[in-house]
This record gives sequence, structure tokens and C-alpha cells, in this order.
Amino acid sequence: MNAHIESIQAPRAIPAVFMERLRERFGSRCSEAAAVREHHGRDESPYPVMPPDAVVFAESTEEVVFVARLCNEFGVPLIPYGAGSSLEGHVLAAQGGVVLNLQAMNRILSVDAGDLTATVQPGVLRRQLNEELRDTGLFFPIDPGADASIGGMTATRASGTNAVRYGTMRENVVSLTVVTADGRVVRTAGRARKSSAGYDLTRVFVGSEGTLGIIVEVTVRLYPLPEAVSAAICNFSTLDDAVRCVIDTVQMGVPVARVEFLDAASVRAVNQHSKLTLRETPLLAFEFHGSPEGVREQAEIVQELAREHGGENFEWAERPEDRNRLWSARHNAYFASVQLRPGCLASTTDVCVPISRLAENVTAAAEDLAKASFPSTILGHVGDGNFHVLMMLDPESKEEWEESEAINHRIVRRAIDADGTCTGEHGVGLHKMQFLTEEHGEDAIALMRSLKHAFDPNNILNPGKIIAW
Amino acid sequence: MNAHIESIQAPRAIPAVFMERLRERFGSRCSEAAAVREHHGRDESPYPVMPPDAVVFAESTEEVVFVARLCNEFGVPLIPYGAGSSLEGHVLAAQGGVVLNLQAMNRILSVDAGDLTATVQPGVLRRQLNEELRDTGLFFPIDPGADASIGGMTATRASGTNAVRYGTMRENVVSLTVVTADGRVVRTAGRARKSSAGYDLTRVFVGSEGTLGIIVEVTVRLYPLPEAVSAAICNFSTLDDAVRCVIDTVQMGVPVARVEFLDAASVRAVNQHSKLTLRETPLLAFEFHGSPEGVREQAEIVQELAREHGGENFEWAERPEDRNRLWSARHNAYFASVQLRPGCLASTTDVCVPISRLAENVTAAAEDLAKASFPSTILGHVGDGNFHVLMMLDPESKEEWEESEAINHRIVRRAIDADGTCTGEHGVGLHKMQFLTEEHGEDAIALMRSLKHAFDPNNILNPGKIIAW
Repeated sequence: MNAHIESIQAPRAIPAVFMERLRERFGSRCSEAAAVREHHGRDESPYPVMPPDAVVFAESTEEVVFVARLCNEFGVPLIPYGAGSSLEGHVLAAQGGVVLNLQAMNRILSVDAGDLTATVQPGVLRRQLNEELRDTGLFFPIDPGADASIGGMTATRASGTNAVRYGTMRENVVSLTVVTADGRVVRTAGRARKSSAGYDLTRVFVGSEGTLGIIVEVTVRLYPLPEAVSAAICNFSTLDDAVRCVIDTVQMGVPVARVEFLDAASVRAVNQHSKLTLRETPLLAFEFHGSPEGVREQAEIVQELAREHGGENFEWAERPEDRNRLWSARHNAYFASVQLRPGCLASTTDVCVPISRLAENVTAAAEDLAKASFPSTILGHVGDGNFHVLMMLDPESKEEWEESEAINHRIVRRAIDADGTCTGEHGVGLHKMQFLTEEHGEDAIALMRSLKHAFDPNNILNPGKIIAW
Repeated sequence: MNAHIESIQAPRAIPAVFMERLRERFGSRCSEAAAVREHHGRDESPYPVMPPDAVVFAESTEEVVFVARLCNEFGVPLIPYGAGSSLEGHVLAAQGGVVLNLQAMNRILSVDAGDLTATVQPGVLRRQLNEELRDTGLFFPIDPGADASIGGMTATRASGTNAVRYGTMRENVVSLTVVTADGRVVRTAGRARKSSAGYDLTRVFVGSEGTLGIIVEVTVRLYPLPEAVSAAICNFSTLDDAVRCVIDTVQMGVPVARVEFLDAASVRAVNQHSKLTLRETPLLAFEFHGSPEGVREQAEIVQELAREHGGENFEWAERPEDRNRLWSARHNAYFASVQLRPGCLASTTDVCVPISRLAENVTAAAEDLAKASFPSTILGHVGDGNFHVLMMLDPESKEEWEESEAINHRIVRRAIDADGTCTGEHGVGLHKMQFLTEEHGEDAIALMRSLKHAFDPNNILNPGKIIAW
């Protein structure tokens, strides 16, 4: 399957003595079994499996330090692994080495309700954290859809449906504890809400995809649960109308918590997958957070804006169960789309553009896709100017893959021309590396490379990701 | 004056040929006049003047590139200079060299109202930007009090009175164009609201105080002017009551735009300076932004919380002129404090702590100051856990300086013990360098140093600031 996609594999030789010391330290928590290695050599990306030489199941910071030191001594690649839900090949062992599974480091270390922060180990899943917070009246808003690990979400600078209101991991990570390539344990910041005390190491590691250090603790911001929540959906006759309604909403400063776009094909997929009966036209789904009065105010403004753009069937989901059905349908849109073509290989795009350029970018993508020889859907966190195209490909067809990559390139180039980015929230991994120079320029990439060289001089940390050595 | 404060001056030798090439390129815009050098060898910090060898008045990115290349070739220190309003010795030429005055690079390059961004040259002042935005219905919220330059605010990761609602420069810089030590021009990001495309170079430069690159363009976020604004002040019998009212407000998630604390001495200073008649007790000043209903709701909640903490005289300033008088009095609190002791040398602290630890930290600082032999005031952006102590010292008295430094150290140590920071918004400069290792640990400082070495291998960019080479 998808063997035609270049695997970019260039495994390094692993010294026997390295493996001996690893086995000696971890016993059965160091696995070289083919099934375990293969399981850890894939993510949700279209790439073929690239298994590591070994998988270590770490249980403590000390163990992470041990592995980092050993890998650094022997020049062995070391790849941190959370929930495996990344989409661009982030965790694939392109150069072999050790995948460090951090799922057992899943303790919530503290919930500081008074300071609106929680400190967790990297393997904590976002639903687990919100479960734990249930009785505190607080929540952690970042919601990429998948039940990703907090460590992984930090490493990819993830965001998702309600970033338009609460920001991304960039804004919501307060502090990190990181194990460096040479096994030092560094805390990047205290828990104060702001600081001007030197270089922003926290933000250096957020979005670094395991290439600069291994995250072993994350302190995140929490928010009081809104007093009132309401949700609504609205159909539009054209994609352009829907997007322009969002642009107006953002430009007016309405503090919507979520505003999601689905094209007609996405709605069809969601209807099939979640047994819903939504009208199959371009659709916006809104969520409002605030006081009861505030929520009502926001909704009235948005309803009026939707009307101005020909929106129809503005429909409310006031009851929690209706809202949950709606949002879980939205969250399942990825899987619903994939099921439009059973057994397909899914490739996703993730561009993000300044909001004023969103309508033209979505429209041009739709025009490209209308001519494609495979099914596709468009959906996105349009309040941020971020949208995804899902292309459902025949896994055996090299032609479809090349066609999808050509469309992907056109979508990315238009985004970059619009002063946007090739990836709003999924990260670079392997799949977006080809665009970084085009997006940032040679000199910016040289700075990024010098940062990588400074923090990981032996190139052991998730090598071959983000930027070439 | 204040000659007893160690000047930390260690000028490097400047080759004659370097100066010749600088004079040749800039003519009268390269000044070696004593008065000009001295003017550029000070800021608002208590340090004695440390003049550079020359001051260059740059007018374009190309000129900045020329100076960077020349300084890099000859190993000459290069210090970018905006409004000169920094408080910790950031712009002082401790090692001599060239101060690069960027005040003439003061053009607003674009206002992209639809995307809620503006792109400006570094010498643009924050009031100038808001003046320019007047007819757009948008504003730039970051407000450090002084009419600082946007470049300088970026370089110090500044914030101020309404960071509690709108964040700091960390959250509000979208993209930068930076000249590197070797004269390359790098744009750190596009204008999309979010991106996962590689290392966060923007955040690397925000707060780097001119030590990693020279900012030549800044794209900032703008916000729609709130439909309604109201302000209120409230007296409290004790400092602890006032601070606890703020803690409750933040913990309840009330989206106050500003909440400022003044101790009784600050109120007295403000009364004298601004001809006001505020009751001279610990005082909170609030500002609320939102819809008319939203603002009323917020104010009602806060008024109730204030009452619970013994707040009295909750007084409204609904009219713009009343609000402006109130906030300009608050903004002048620094100068008002300094006038409590004419001719004094003012030293300020800037700690920021998790909000749950704020009351104990402010109280302990007040106890220290009650025993001091000089007048002082306490005020702060308490919604962020950030407060300042201003100590008005006899400039001739080494004893008072040492006493103030001892108090400063105690305030900082308590903040660090509370998982806070030695500087919430003023930056490190020269004055806070002594605390960075204590706050971050040796290993974090080593990472910061490796970043500095990677970005500025010849140590020409504002050398001797933030961390020792």
C-alpha cells in the first residue's frame, strides 16, 4: 500500500553496544518486535511505514534523560511519540533509531485552579485533562479533533476548532520542562502570566516537533467554563457567501468561540457517517461562549451577518446533547470524509491565510478539486483563516498521488502568495518540508538551522524533520 | 550623580578604518558629538551614562544592513535605539560601539483593517499608531505607559495596563522583519493568525532586547474599538483586600480590560501630580470593554466582588474625559512618584507572580518598604500578577542605593520562590541579569547562550545584555 510514495528512509547504523545498554536499562520496556516497531513507524499521514530500530516505553523524566544521553553518545536518532495522531509524518523513523513512547507518562501533576493553570506529563490526552477538570469549573480549550496528547499538541503547535477565541498552543503553553539532546533537564519558564526575563525558550520548543528537545512536562492555561454556551448552524448557497460571513464576523470582533466551515461534500460525508440530516450545502457551524446575555448578543449579530450573506436555516442547538452531536459530527468529519471512498489513502492540506484572502483561496481550491479524478472535501477553522482539503486517493495509484500533490502545491503556493502559511496547525513533519524555504526564504531557514545546530549538535532529535540538516 | 553605581563599562577598541567607513556612508547622520553620544548612552534606568563611540541615524533597512555588516566585520558593538524609554539599562553602550537610532524609521507601512493587522517601522510610537488608526475603528491595545516605540516594545516584550485582556507583545506581534548580525534581512512569518511552519522565529526575537537581531519592521495585531467602555475606581482599607478582589475577578474569568493597583503612597503622588482628590487608601482602577450590556454585566460582578472585600466608594467614570483623566493620572504615576522626592534617583522593580501568590508578595514588599529610609510607591498591573515598586533614592547616597538593591533582591527572590519572574514587562537589560540564573537555572541559561552564539557569533548585537557571553 502507498509504496509509490517516496519513503525518504535513510537509516543510520545502530551500534550493538548501544542496543545492549538500552535493553539492559529497560528490559521488556525496550521492544524490537516487528509489530511494535511498525506500529510506532506510522501516524495518520499518507506515508508508508518507517519503523524505528527499537521502541522504548519511558515512565519518568530520568528515563528520558537516560535515553537522550545514550542516543547522543552514539549518534542514534531519538523520536518522541505521544498519541501517534500527527498528520504529516512527524513521528516516522526516517533515519531509524529509537522511538520514545511517552504514553505512560500520563499523570496530571497539578491543577492550580486559582492560577488557571495545570501541569501535566506529555502523555496526558486532552480529553483526559478535561475529564480531570470536570469538577473545577475550568477547562482546557485547545481541541484539534483527535484525542491527541498534550505533549504532541505542544510539539506541533496544535490548535483546532476554538482557536479563534482561545488561541493555539503557542498562546496557551505557560511553561515546559524539556530534556535536551545531551540529557539536561530544563524548565523554560515559571508560571507567571507574563515575563520579559530573557529569550522565550517556551515558544522555541512549542512547534519544534521533537527536533530541539523532548517535552516531559507541560503547564497549560485553563479557562473558566463559560456560564452559557450556544451553538448554531447555517446553510449558504455558495462557499463564497459562507466564507464572507465569517470574514465579517471576525472583522467586527464578535468573540465567537468556534466557527467552522464545511463544504457540501463534507456535509454529505458527515450526514452519512453520523446519521444526520443536515442540508447538503456549504455550511457554517458556530459556538458562542459567555454570559447568557453575551451569548445572545453574539448570536444575534452573527445571525444578522449570515442573513446579509444569504444564509438560510439558521438553526439552534441550545441543549448540550444537541451541541455535542453537532460537534462530534464535526470532529468526525475527517473519518467521515475518508469513508466516502473505503480503503482510500487520505492526504490533507492545512493552509492558513490572512482572513481577507480566505474567500479567494477557498474558492480557488474548490475549482482545482472540481477537476480532480478523486473525491475530496473542504472544511476548516475559518475564523482563523485556516482550511483543510481532504483528498481521498486510491492507495495503489501513483497517478492520483501525483495529481493530489500537484493540487496540494497549488493550494500552498496561493496561500504563500497571500502572505499565509503552508501549515496552520498540523506542523511540518516530512510532508511540508518542501515548502518551508518558499514560505520563509533561505535566510530564515538558515536561522532555523542554526538554532537546530545549537540545540542538537549531533542531530539526534527527530532528525530529518522540519529542516534538512 | 549616581556615580557610585557600578557602570559595568568595558569599551572595545574601535578601529579607525571602521569609523572612516561609517562617516563616509552617513555623513552628518553619523555623530560623534559628546552631547549626542551622552543622550544615547542613557535610558530611564538608574545607571550612569554609558555613551557609545558614535550614533548613527538610520533611515532605511538598507542602512541598517550596512551598519550591521560593518560592525560584524570589525567586531564593533551595535545597539538599536528606539524611544530611549527602557528602564533597565537596555540601550546603554556598556562596551562602547555604535548606537543605531531608528527614530527616523517611523512610517506606518500598511494598515490591513480587514485582517486586523498593521505593519510599521520600528521607530513608530504607540500613540502615533493609534492616532493613525483613529478613523478605522481599530486600535492597538498594548500600553506600557511611556510613549515607547513599537520596535522597542517588541524588543522588551512589553505589555502594560491592558495586557490582562489583550495580552503582551508576545501575543500581539504577528511577524517581524529583522536584520541579522551579518546583515541578512529575514522575515519571521507571514500574516496568517496562526502557523505551525517551523520554529517560531517571531517569538525568538520578541523580548531579545536587540541581542539577536535588529527589528526593522513589525506587524502587530489590531482590535476593533470596543462598542462601550467604562471605568471605575474603588478604595480598599488594606492592600490585601484590594489584591484579593483582583484575584477573585481573574479567577472568575471576568474579561476586564484593565485592573490597576495603587497603594496609598501612589494615590498621594498621583493626587499631587495630577491635581486629583482621590481618597488616599489602596485603590483599584478598572476598565471594561465590550457591548453596553457586556460592560454593565462585568462591572456589576466586579462591584459585587469589591464589596465582598470591603471596597468602598465604587466610583464611575463613564464620560471619555473622566476616563482619560483617570488613566492619564495612572500613566503619570511613575513621574508623580519620582516627584515625591525632587531630584531623586528612581529604581523600579517589576516582578510578576502567579495570581494566587500575589497578595503575599505585595504585602511582603510593603513590609520591606515600610522599614526603608527612602520614600516608595507600589503600583501594578495586578490582573497579570505584575507589580512595580518605585524607590526614590538620594542620588548621592551609596547607602540608599545598596538598601534599595537589597529590597529589590528580596522582592525578586520571593517572586522566584512563588514560581514567578524577576521581570514581567520591563526586560532584563543590565539590571536584571544577576537574577536570570536564579530564575531559570544554569541549563536554561546555557540554552539561551547557545541561541545567542548561533545568531550573533561575533557578539556585536547589544553585547553584555540579558546574558553574559
